[in-house]
Amino acid sequence: MTGAPRARTAGRGRRPGPTETREAILAEAREMFADKGYDGTSLRAIARAAGVDPALVHHFFGTKEGVFVEAMRFPVDPSVVLPQLLSLPRERLGEAIVRTFLQVWGDADRRAPLLAMLRSAMTNERAAAMMREFVTSALLGRAGAAGDVPHLNIQAAVGQMIGVMILRYVLRVEPMASASEDELVALVAPTLQRYLD
Amino acid sequence: MTGAPRARTAGRGRRPGPTETREAILAEAREMFADKGYDGTSLRAIARAAGVDPALVHHFFGTKEGVFVEAMRFPVDPSVVLPQLLSLPRERLGEAIVRTFLQVWGDADRRAPLLAMLRSAMTNERAAAMMREFVTSALLGRAGAAGDVPHLNIQAAVGQMIGVMILRYVLRVEPMASASEDELVALVAPTLQRYLD
Repeated sequence: MTGAPRARTAGRGRRPGPTETREAILAEAREMFADKGYDGTSLRAIARAAGVDPALVHHFFGTKEGVFVEAMRFPVDPSVVLPQLLSLPRERLGEAIVRTFLQVWGDADRRAPLLAMLRSAMTNERAAAMMREFVTSALLGRAGAAGDVPHLNIQAAVGQMIGVMILRYVLRVEPMASASEDELVALVAPTLQRYLD
Repeated sequence: MTGAPRARTAGRGRRPGPTETREAILAEAREMFADKGYDGTSLRAIARAAGVDPALVHHFFGTKEGVFVEAMRFPVDPSVVLPQLLSLPRERLGEAIVRTFLQVWGDADRRAPLLAMLRSAMTNERAAAMMREFVTSALLGRAGAAGDVPHLNIQAAVGQMIGVMILRYVLRVEPMASASEDELVALVAPTLQRYLD
């Protein structure tokens, strides 16, 4: 990796446009997250690798979470979705989480990168570490800080949703695959509610 | 595929021993399950492909489930484990299921083939179909026949366990990865119990 943005047109000396710079930053970020994990990567190091000022990375993506979400095409930005969920009355949280998962996983374009990451994590320890660190820091750190719910309970709730999503959208087992959103809310929301109460 | 068992030593004309014949049957079964799915494969067709009598396949493996479990190295034989679970008093079922999952997934050798199948199912529709059909027929058919629990509820319970297993053994997120068996029973068994009551 040289210090120069990769998107620069070789030999022309033309300054890269904002789109090219953005893509160059994301390419460096993708490589760095895969190589050093989520915790081992900083916004500053990504900027250095892409040959740009850290302020520009901040300007484009806000936080490290934001860079990760874009670079890995992670289909949800926890820094956007979690505050929304946590602003709800506690007793509506179970239902809101079920509907959020169904919305994200029900969209094949958003599901695909998530499944790709999960597949990698199943054979590759580095990929597992990256996902583990992102889940821990961006998701649990934020959710835990906002409430008094033990992390183990949050993980049981997330586990419930991951498993149901795999049965519904990957294995497509019936009747789970064809159940309506309301049926799944009625079935699963009380479970989440119990974990989070 | 010729009609002769693959394990026969080429050009020697020697009769294959029981171990070789068993392996030859499993090799044909593996190919046939992957190619035609679980529902599209019969004990008779496996026998034909392996060039042996169906009675011999039955003698070695009992049922089609038994062949699948051996051929795919599926770490649990539903025809053994489900009757054990279903013989328990209903109110102990939640705990027993949690402990069974932890026992199977906690063993790296039993976890590996399961993860391999799950990975394949994430990218390959044939692999997904095979796993879906096996889960539906061998697991849900059996569990549903024995009780009055709706399939959707059984799947929500299985989903809870799959998700927790992925967080604990694949992503190894803390504190889930280090939680004791008893902690997980206390956390998750009431959820399963609710689905199955």
